Amino acid sequence: MEQKTKITAEEGKQDIWITREFDAPVALLFKAHTDPQLLVKWMSNPYAKANVLKFEGKKHGSYQLESTDAAGKVVFRSNGAIHEFIENEKIIRTFEMENAPFGVQLEIYEFEKLTDGTSKLTMHVIYQSNELRNQLLKMPFAQGINNAHNQLEEVIKNIK
Amino acid sequence: MEQKTKITAEEGKQDIWITREFDAPVALLFKAHTDPQLLVKWMSNPYAKANVLKFEGKKHGSYQLESTDAAGKVVFRSNGAIHEFIENEKIIRTFEMENAPFGVQLEIYEFEKLTDGTSKLTMHVIYQSNELRNQLLKMPFAQGINNAHNQLEEVIKNIK
Repeated sequence: MEQKTKITAEEGKQDIWITREFDAPVALLFKAHTDPQLLVKWMSNPYAKANVLKFEGKKHGSYQLESTDAAGKVVFRSNGAIHEFIENEKIIRTFEMENAPFGVQLEIYEFEKLTDGTSKLTMHVIYQSNELRNQLLKMPFAQGINNAHNQLEEVIKNIK
Repeated sequence: MEQKTKITAEEGKQDIWITREFDAPVALLFKAHTDPQLLVKWMSNPYAKANVLKFEGKKHGSYQLESTDAAGKVVFRSNGAIHEFIENEKIIRTFEMENAPFGVQLEIYEFEKLTDGTSKLTMHVIYQSNELRNQLLKMPFAQGINNAHNQLEEVIKNIK
């Protein structure tokens, strides 16, 4: 089945573009990215439960997230600093997967209203190098983000 | 005269590397980058006085700087969020020149001890695109940073 979340990774470059259109108003799409109670819902999966350790959703704020397995063991932790935070429009932040060899990424999220009931997310993710980007893309990254976005759409649907 | 601060900008890429060796212990080099009273000294020049509006030198901290001309008019303002802050070793931060069309940069500063009295700064600056990087490089950027680093060395010399 075709994945709704599209990833563009031009050869030789050190960035990627991720786009997805959602059947949801832009305000709900933004809320799903910034409300810890919604974040943990769509970022969890059958194998790992997401937890928000810190989320200061503001300019010059920061965040830290983790995922734990069924036994409660931390399988993934990430953190970053928030450079820009404009409600229903834009988030610019850093992202680092802790204890992993992928370096720090600059992430630019743009939230766009298409119609009253539909919206578009554009993510521009910039890595420290082309090599680090390509290593990350070898992981089941595209499928993972598509699945998470599918869950995001379900979560939003239920709070409409 | 040869510039001591070297800039490497590979064609087609969206990042640059800046390196410079200083006749100063690494702890003083780090202090010059994180102590507001020292920062304003080496970042000022005959045409513009630097001011530190905010400097939270810590992991998930942030900063805002400005420069004013002789009449007190703001000629330049910048801000960013701090992703990582390891004393005498590393700073990872975002950087944005406000009201300018250059986007947001990810900057990785590495501070390295060479000998007890000498040290090396390596800056890896990553832009949103190759086009934005090249626009910025057309400005008198290399000379500006070399002059600032010359001043930095003078400032450090006086507090030895």
